[in-house]
This record gives sequence, structure tokens and C-alpha cells, in this order.
Amino acid sequence: MAASTLAVVGVGLIGGSIGLAARRCGAAARVLGVDRDPAALESALALGAIDEACDELTAAAAADLVVVCAPVDLIADLVVRVACACRAGTIVTDVGSTKAGIVAAVRGRLPPGLVFVGGHPLAGSEKHGPEHARDGLFAGRLVVLTPTPWTPEAASGRVRDFWQALGARVRFMEAGEHDRALALTSHLPHLLASALAGTLPPDLYEVTATGFRDTTRLASGHPAVWTPILRANHAALLDALALLEAQLDRFRQALACDDLASLNALLQLGKTVRDRLAGRG
Amino acid sequence: MAASTLAVVGVGLIGGSIGLAARRCGAAARVLGVDRDPAALESALALGAIDEACDELTAAAAADLVVVCAPVDLIADLVVRVACACRAGTIVTDVGSTKAGIVAAVRGRLPPGLVFVGGHPLAGSEKHGPEHARDGLFAGRLVVLTPTPWTPEAASGRVRDFWQALGARVRFMEAGEHDRALALTSHLPHLLASALAGTLPPDLYEVTATGFRDTTRLASGHPAVWTPILRANHAALLDALALLEAQLDRFRQALACDDLASLNALLQLGKTVRDRLAGRG
Repeated sequence: MAASTLAVVGVGLIGGSIGLAARRCGAAARVLGVDRDPAALESALALGAIDEACDELTAAAAADLVVVCAPVDLIADLVVRVACACRAGTIVTDVGSTKAGIVAAVRGRLPPGLVFVGGHPLAGSEKHGPEHARDGLFAGRLVVLTPTPWTPEAASGRVRDFWQALGARVRFMEAGEHDRALALTSHLPHLLASALAGTLPPDLYEVTATGFRDTTRLASGHPAVWTPILRANHAALLDALALLEAQLDRFRQALACDDLASLNALLQLGKTVRDRLAGRG
Repeated sequence: MAASTLAVVGVGLIGGSIGLAARRCGAAARVLGVDRDPAALESALALGAIDEACDELTAAAAADLVVVCAPVDLIADLVVRVACACRAGTIVTDVGSTKAGIVAAVRGRLPPGLVFVGGHPLAGSEKHGPEHARDGLFAGRLVVLTPTPWTPEAASGRVRDFWQALGARVRFMEAGEHDRALALTSHLPHLLASALAGTLPPDLYEVTATGFRDTTRLASGHPAVWTPILRANHAALLDALALLEAQLDRFRQALACDDLASLNALLQLGKTVRDRLAGRG
């Protein structure tokens, strides 16, 4: 690993943090950065997130490992294009928040000897841009990898080792299972935060406190990033939304019928789950 | 103000923080603490949140200003009981998260010369107990006071001055207007956080990250505190929930119809509102 050349395609918050972390821990001997935005490349260079700014073809030809960091609707085509410029044996992975569509779209389109391993680090921020990158972003965080039954074990093991070197925990999941899980744990919270923020009239801005602000923090995420994510996972997201609506209905019933025992039980269930999460890494 | 004796009835997170802040800034010369839980009183004394632990009658007789800090379903009766033991001229206020029911329940039940001014500091935490109290809890925070047309201006001015001395901003609102506002900015976020946490099956706990945790933080609040709040404000809360459901419907439509322009516009609205809140105190 230590002798490898890493190419990061897309040097925003995630890509920049990967570069910083890989350089700090020696998970890559050299980090090449690719981005269509020259300002992002300059910023990534200045921050020490990459050793060199390259064009896509040069980076692909030099890399042992390529990590594609882009909005989910652009990832599959980028993976295929980059892979076609790579040497045989190079492994390509990504950081997209949805996986089934990307894995399916890449399949059968890679040149011989090239392997793609879908990946998703559960880390990030409502911020974006390399200026918010930090080398500890993945420490203790979960990275889900979604190899298929046809993915060589050596390749998924290599990507696992890379993330573990960056301090992350790694879990393998089937891509569809990943998407169903994230619909509930990430995409639904985003939708809810956005819907809740969207109901607030301007005259009530002053009457908000930390509760409203924490609950809606995710709404600050960039629509250019989140529209493709919610779209790509719309089926699982609609299922998750239906689950939530059923729970909201139980609250509505309890409130409308002045059923304090049920109201208390619903609040207690939420507290029990949330308190268990607080004790986790 | 500096010569006054303050009685804090209920020395939990909020009451303890009021005592700490009032002692630090000199808003009260002496702070008396009342609580039915001897451990809370001991803890408040040890932390310097109160000068003395008293029984209710002693504290009421000595106080110029009484702040009742209790679950909302207990506040009105406590206010009346305490007021009956106060000297004429004493002002009683509270910190309950709902106001219309309390103001109505107190009205006409106070002895002559006693004034109640409803209050609600928009500050707090999902934690509870005096051990989480801090003297800066109200710095820069909004406190809503809900005097009625019959409240003497001198009394509401005195309570306003007290909170301002603790570093808070003060706004006067009609009690029903307060409740409708807070239904949307506080009680609905709490309900949503709880409902979202309640939909999470245990096998997905590991697949949560900061997004899920921030969105559900409020769910850790104590049901004994929140059941009475949601109940007391159930009519306004059901209206707020209907507003949110309408926004969720718009998301559902956009997802089901693959209407990217609408999906993007909904996310952009949420971002615009949330980003404006981030710039506020």
C-alpha cells in the first residue's frame, strides 16, 4: 500500500479529506488530484490534500487506486471513463451515497483487468469544498463497501485496507441492502430536515432555538448533491417515508384522542432508540 | 433588582441555570431553592446554583420574585399555591414551554396584590437535572413573556429586566400566539425527532451517522417533560403537523413522478430557510 499512487477524482470536502488522511497516514505515497474546477484543485494543493493536480487521463494512467468523489448521477460514467485510461490491475472505487444504480451502471462496461468496488463513507457535512476537508473526517466512521459476487476478493480487500488505514470501520453490504438502509438512516432525515425548514415562515425565524436548528441542520446540504441522491434512491426512500408517516399517524391519533399513555410510549420509544445511538461510536 | 430575593421552585437544568446566572450577574442578592427531590436541592447547593434550600412556604414568604420551573402540567397549580404564600407585591413567573393553558388556569386564582407573568426561555437541552445547569444557558437566547392586557406593565417590565440581566433577549407575545409559534418551531421538531428515531430497527443502528443523530437529538428529551407539553399544545401541534405533511406530500409527488425541478426547488427552499437561521444568534 505505501508505495501506491492514489488518484482522487473530485477534490471537494470528501475527496480533499481522503487526500489529507491518505497523505498523513501513509496510505498512499503520492496523491494525484483531478477536478474540473481549477479553484478546487488550487485550494486542495494549498491545503496539502494532494501532491499534484493532474488531468484525468494522466492521473488514471499513474494510479493504483482511484477514488471517484462526485455527485451520484455523475459517478458511473466517470468511473467507466477513468477506468478506460487506467493500467490493468488498477482498482476504482467511489464514495457515492447510493450504490445499486452505480454498481449496475458500471457493470460490464469496464476494460479487462479493471475492477470497480462501490463504496460509501458515512461521513460528511452539510458544508462542501476542499476548504472544509479534514484529515480526521473518517476516524471511527463506517465505510460501507458493496462488492458483487463477481468482485475479486483481493480487490474489495484492498479497498477495505485503504479505508481502515484512514481510521474507518468497514462493512460489506449488498448494494440494494445499503440503499434500503441509507434511505432510512440518511435520505429520509435529509428529506425531513428540508421539509421542516421549508414550513417555517420568516416571522418565526426569531422564535427558533437549538432544537429547530439541530433537527434541520441537514437541510443546508447542497441541492445539486442531494437531488440526485434522493432521485437515485426514490423507491426505498418512499418506503421509508411511509414508515415514518405511520409513526406520525400514531402521534396524531394519540394527540387527537388525548391518549397520554400512547403519547408517552411513543416518546419513550424514540428516547430509547436515540439514547442507544448516543452510546455508539 | 440587586436587593431582591429570588425563589427558584424546581432546581433542574433550567432552574439551576437561572440560579447560577442570577448569582453570577447579581440579578438577585439571594437565591432560594425549592424542590421536592432532596438530591436535586443538595446538588444545586453544591454547584452554587442556590444560596439556600427551603420549603415552599418559607421561600414564597421571603421572595420578591418567584420562578416556577416544573413540567407544564404542574405549573399552574404550583403558581397558585406559591402565590398564596407570597407577600403582596411579589411577582411570580414560570418557564413552561406552553403558555395559553397556564395563563388561563392561573387567572382569577391569585390573591390580591400578586401578579403572574407567563414566561418561556427558548433554551434548554435534552439533558435534565441541576448537574447539567450552566450560568451561560440564557446568554443571547430569546425569552418570550406573555403578559395579558390585565398584567401591570411594571410587573412584566420587572420580569423582562430580570431575564435581560441574565443575558437573554426578551419578546412579549400573546400566549396563544406563543403556543402557535412554538408548535412549529419546537414541539413539531420534537415529535418528528421522536417519530424518526422510533422507526429505526436495531439492525440499522450501526448504519447511522451524524445526520441521523442530529436530526433525532431532541428525541432524548424526557417523556415526563414532553408528554404534557405536546398534550397542552395539541391543537396547534396538529395544525403544524398538517403543514409539515403537506410539505412531505410535495416531496412524495416529486419523487414518485421523477420531477427533478420540483425536488430541487423543495430542497432549495429548505436550504434557504436553514441558511438564514445559521446567521442568527
